[in-house]
Amino acid sequence: MDGYMKVAIMEGIGKMGYTQRSIPEPKEDEVLVKLEYVGICGSDMHYYENGAIGDYVVKPPFVLGHEPGGTVVEVGSNVKHLKVGDRVALEPGKTCGRCEFCRRGKYNLCPDVVFFATPPVDGVFQEYVAHEAALCFRLPDNVSTLEGALIEPLAVGFHAASQGGAHAGQTAVVIGAGCIGLVSMMALKAEGVSKVYVVDVMQKRLDKALELGADGVINGKDEDAVEAVGTLTDGAGCDLVIETAGTGFTTRQAIHMTKKGATVVLVGYSKTGGVTLPMSLALDKELTFKTVFRYRHMYPVAIDAVAAGRVNLKGIVTDIFDFDDIQNAMDRSVTDKANIVKAVVKIATGE
Amino acid sequence: MDGYMKVAIMEGIGKMGYTQRSIPEPKEDEVLVKLEYVGICGSDMHYYENGAIGDYVVKPPFVLGHEPGGTVVEVGSNVKHLKVGDRVALEPGKTCGRCEFCRRGKYNLCPDVVFFATPPVDGVFQEYVAHEAALCFRLPDNVSTLEGALIEPLAVGFHAASQGGAHAGQTAVVIGAGCIGLVSMMALKAEGVSKVYVVDVMQKRLDKALELGADGVINGKDEDAVEAVGTLTDGAGCDLVIETAGTGFTTRQAIHMTKKGATVVLVGYSKTGGVTLPMSLALDKELTFKTVFRYRHMYPVAIDAVAAGRVNLKGIVTDIFDFDDIQNAMDRSVTDKANIVKAVVKIATGE
Amino acid sequence: MDGYMKVAIMEGIGKMGYTQRSIPEPKEDEVLVKLEYVGICGSDMHYYENGAIGDYVVKPPFVLGHEPGGTVVEVGSNVKHLKVGDRVALEPGKTCGRCEFCRRGKYNLCPDVVFFATPPVDGVFQEYVAHEAALCFRLPDNVSTLEGALIEPLAVGFHAASQGGAHAGQTAVVIGAGCIGLVSMMALKAEGVSKVYVVDVMQKRLDKALELGADGVINGKDEDAVEAVGTLTDGAGCDLVIETAGTGFTTRQAIHMTKKGATVVLVGYSKTGGVTLPMSLALDKELTFKTVFRYRHMYPVAIDAVAAGRVNLKGIVTDIFDFDDIQNAMDRSVTDKANIVKAVVKIATGE
Amino acid sequence: MDGYMKVAIMEGIGKMGYTQRSIPEPKEDEVLVKLEYVGICGSDMHYYENGAIGDYVVKPPFVLGHEPGGTVVEVGSNVKHLKVGDRVALEPGKTCGRCEFCRRGKYNLCPDVVFFATPPVDGVFQEYVAHEAALCFRLPDNVSTLEGALIEPLAVGFHAASQGGAHAGQTAVVIGAGCIGLVSMMALKAEGVSKVYVVDVMQKRLDKALELGADGVINGKDEDAVEAVGTLTDGAGCDLVIETAGTGFTTRQAIHMTKKGATVVLVGYSKTGGVTLPMSLALDKELTFKTVFRYRHMYPVAIDAVAAGRVNLKGIVTDIFDFDDIQNAMDRSVTDKANIVKAVVKIATGE
Repeated sequence: MDGYMKVAIMEGIGKMGYTQRSIPEPKEDEVLVKLEYVGICGSDMHYYENGAIGDYVVKPPFVLGHEPGGTVVEVGSNVKHLKVGDRVALEPGKTCGRCEFCRRGKYNLCPDVVFFATPPVDGVFQEYVAHEAALCFRLPDNVSTLEGALIEPLAVGFHAASQGGAHAGQTAVVIGAGCIGLVSMMALKAEGVSKVYVVDVMQKRLDKALELGADGVINGKDEDAVEAVGTLTDGAGCDLVIETAGTGFTTRQAIHMTKKGATVVLVGYSKTGGVTLPMSLALDKELTFKTVFRYRHMYPVAIDAVAAGRVNLKGIVTDIFDFDDIQNAMDRSVTDKANIVKAVVKIATGE
Repeated sequence: MDGYMKVAIMEGIGKMGYTQRSIPEPKEDEVLVKLEYVGICGSDMHYYENGAIGDYVVKPPFVLGHEPGGTVVEVGSNVKHLKVGDRVALEPGKTCGRCEFCRRGKYNLCPDVVFFATPPVDGVFQEYVAHEAALCFRLPDNVSTLEGALIEPLAVGFHAASQGGAHAGQTAVVIGAGCIGLVSMMALKAEGVSKVYVVDVMQKRLDKALELGADGVINGKDEDAVEAVGTLTDGAGCDLVIETAGTGFTTRQAIHMTKKGATVVLVGYSKTGGVTLPMSLALDKELTFKTVFRYRHMYPVAIDAVAAGRVNLKGIVTDIFDFDDIQNAMDRSVTDKANIVKAVVKIATGE
Repeated sequence: MDGYMKVAIMEGIGKMGYTQRSIPEPKEDEVLVKLEYVGICGSDMHYYENGAIGDYVVKPPFVLGHEPGGTVVEVGSNVKHLKVGDRVALEPGKTCGRCEFCRRGKYNLCPDVVFFATPPVDGVFQEYVAHEAALCFRLPDNVSTLEGALIEPLAVGFHAASQGGAHAGQTAVVIGAGCIGLVSMMALKAEGVSKVYVVDVMQKRLDKALELGADGVINGKDEDAVEAVGTLTDGAGCDLVIETAGTGFTTRQAIHMTKKGATVVLVGYSKTGGVTLPMSLALDKELTFKTVFRYRHMYPVAIDAVAAGRVNLKGIVTDIFDFDDIQNAMDRSVTDKANIVKAVVKIATGE
Repeated sequence: MDGYMKVAIMEGIGKMGYTQRSIPEPKEDEVLVKLEYVGICGSDMHYYENGAIGDYVVKPPFVLGHEPGGTVVEVGSNVKHLKVGDRVALEPGKTCGRCEFCRRGKYNLCPDVVFFATPPVDGVFQEYVAHEAALCFRLPDNVSTLEGALIEPLAVGFHAASQGGAHAGQTAVVIGAGCIGLVSMMALKAEGVSKVYVVDVMQKRLDKALELGADGVINGKDEDAVEAVGTLTDGAGCDLVIETAGTGFTTRQAIHMTKKGATVVLVGYSKTGGVTLPMSLALDKELTFKTVFRYRHMYPVAIDAVAAGRVNLKGIVTDIFDFDDIQNAMDRSVTDKANIVKAVVKIATGE
């Protein structure tokens, strides 16, 4: 497809703009996707506010956005499983396929991964993207491209649930009711977990959690979460915690609220250097700690769960911004966290 | 509780009767349960028709029935977690707690298990039973004692799903839509399996499977089940099969309908000595075969799933017989398999 | 067996003495064991020096010692697998067999465990003990009762290796070369781990590690252990760390020296309240943390490994004290950690 | 490297010959290897005798041989981990790296694998081969290229042990003492399995098994293997069987000789269509059956085990044939199975 496309760029900390670039040409193993929705993720906001996450430093102009859904408009010569018109969710990381981690199936740990919106690799707040076809997953008729954009965070939730060995009969607690907390809760329910309780300090997020299927919520401002979990479990403690807040305080709570032999899954990224934990208690309980770095193999799982109606994925969206309104979209996402649970940028309407 | 109770006994092959026995006294770790519903299982029918299953030979008078639900009416002195009036499902096997298998958590393999209605141990087609309190699981308010009686087969279904490593994102096939096939299908759905297809040759059972949540059914009389699964999976084959029919024909089909690397769970008990299987094909696909002997740790899981509305357990019941009608109940169960999917005997009404 | 036996008692902090007690009578499921060797464990020393570990407070007179080996001299009426004259290692914890943890095979987490030398339960620095026969494991001819006494710590090592999923092809690091570090190293080698490196700051312990089979040692006083592991693994990092030192410093090192996707097993008990850890790095590497509380199912494994010559268990013993010399045994163990790697008390000689 | 190389070809059933071909040019991700030893595998013999294995039909001229060891003589421009002069073992299967199986780490199930000596892909009974560098594993100084050639079958043994979940404390039986049976036995010992017994009907092979480390052997001609295992395990049965004979008789024996809850690993390929198995007994015991198709991730594991002296790999070689003697090598391998346990072709001597 000849011609130019509109691209939103981060021009500096707190400053968005637009530019034009050539519409890319798909290679033989790629497809060209006309993007319709791209979610705004916490990491996008972090780059926007701080210009860096750890060693990853933004050098403007930089394209944010790594949660895309769209429609295939051109297909590379080797591609067999997709055709023009297919609506797809795009897994954002291209991996080498040859390293030890790729060969062992843990491709999320590939040291040579090329991942959208991770400096210096541009993201997809733009009209088109050419992407490896194997990373473009076709959406069933009853899954929209808006939901397609949200498959990325849902994949994190399913990976967290999977790392935790989630299954029917368990009682779990999710700490944090932001986007990742909510998708984790929904993934746990989809995996059959019997009871999922959600902890946060913002009531609006807890209301959202209840609306989306949580079995109960705990407002950490009003009550002690450890005691509350004790009460809810008749003193037994929970089998599984997914910690998405990333603070020392909540991670310590996770250790205290579990039953002996339980698993704590750490998803939330601590912004400070170190987290101080009561490890003697963890040993007494013989806890397991699993951690989460992105996800692997979870796009089909997440899409299936949405298609089957097990996850109310579009229910997490509180705000949809137009592509022309991207400065506002980023600003509001950063400043109004009490009201915006999950914002999405609408790039175009599907035909 | 002083006095006598009515007990239904198998007096010989194809012949039921009644007798009176003393109401048992619960020991310090036991509770006395007034039974309300007891399911009729395939093994009950087999003993009734044949007088034996393998080395287990009925010596009349013998009490059948091992799927009980009822209400606690007396509590042993050491029992803490139950009180009079609690409605319970009773796990039928008392284990030694000391052998290698018990110590390792595989108590279903305990060689010294004492299991209801497994000769020479009597079952529970009777008004009361004293049973180890740790094996009596309290039912939540929204789970009836009828459902309580059906927790036993559902526990088999969950154990089969668990042996198969069932989880979100998989496509599974259940072969056989009798009681165990149906509960296996429901357990798979409750564990988040994306697609569950059910194969049988009786349309009534397939209709029941659809009614209870199967994603599709295959009538083996009308179509080749292997081909049908191929079509339903775009040629990929399925990730998991739960085989409940117990025939060589269907077990061979299971091997043929799977994807490479898949798991086949064998639940159905072959009546003939040997089953002839294409093991070279199984090796080429690197299949795993898991087998199921009863269940372990599954009562709480099954009860939770029913309470949460994830399993329509009472939907499997096609016939309820009065306790006074036990001869007819057994006869009909044996002769009318096309219409009776699952029969239950109503011993008494809960107060 | 009628009569009295000599019992060593802790009379107060730092003060040992002796008393006489009746030789116990074995119950029907018990055996009476004449003890020959009992190891001195870190927890014995901790009680001796401090009078308590956490909430477990010694009330004198108290009997220390929970690592016993001896010979059966009397057999309860129900005991079948043991006879008089059998030499045995005694697993020190009696569990309930009925709680959730026991039923699931994680009996080490049983809340009602009765464990030698854990207040208020007396230990076995004494001439005889009556113990549950199922917890007395017969030693093959080529395993001595001295080794039998050391099966207890070796069981910790095997549980640590098992928690870490140790297997052939891995590179592992053990931090700390005290008794538990050494048995962990030997368990890893017995499980087929390809390379096991040991870190400590006392050269004598590192020499012992090399003598007992470590593939290499790192003296943390002379070099940076993280860098040293990097060099030894061509920059890749290790697959598995077993941390037995229990300090924040070494636990942080464990996180830094691993490869992505690795497992860190925490065995060492932190004496301070909290341990400060770089959890963001742990998430980036998607590490798993397993913890160890005693052991389960490991006595037969440990005995087999010693019998097969895979573990040079008696090689860890640096000092054997006479039973009459118990005050000195405890004092020296506490004060001379640089020289005493593992001390054992000889209660009697086998016939 | 310019010039020609000598290639041994199968010219028809039972007929070997030689030809000359150009020495291949390594691509940028490949290395050129001068071959020194190539093992003769059962599949080579089967193609040689029958012209086909299942759907894989030899079209002469065809090159057999897929167990190669040699020295790198040229290195592609992208290759970093190898240099000229490195001695290597070559994993024979190139996989796509992109399919579902490759992505999940089960690359041995890749449908697009290109595997040496599997029609129509030629093998390596020849002087040189250009091969993907990532599949060429450097041998430590104390591992010879003869052992390098044998890493391929040893990888099968380790995969079998891994599929069986082999670990310290178990008692295992290996059925069949041919090359694959012997490497399986050695892999089990290297993984720490306590007791490994080997069953065969040829005494020479059993003697070899004992020489290489089996804890005991059973000659199926002289005694009933099931009874013998019962005696050796005090009636308990074994925890794990690796079946390498591929007959119905021995697979049935495997089911009978196991303890409840055990695992049977099927490696031997049945030549007949179906195998008749007592599946009811398998269900009563709740056995697991794992199968083996080649191996994955096992070259480094196998090389490490040889380097560490845990596996006496060259001990399995009974016959070494010169490259010029290939007709005789194939003929003898096929006709003299009682004496030849493992034959290797010496292509050249290392410099």
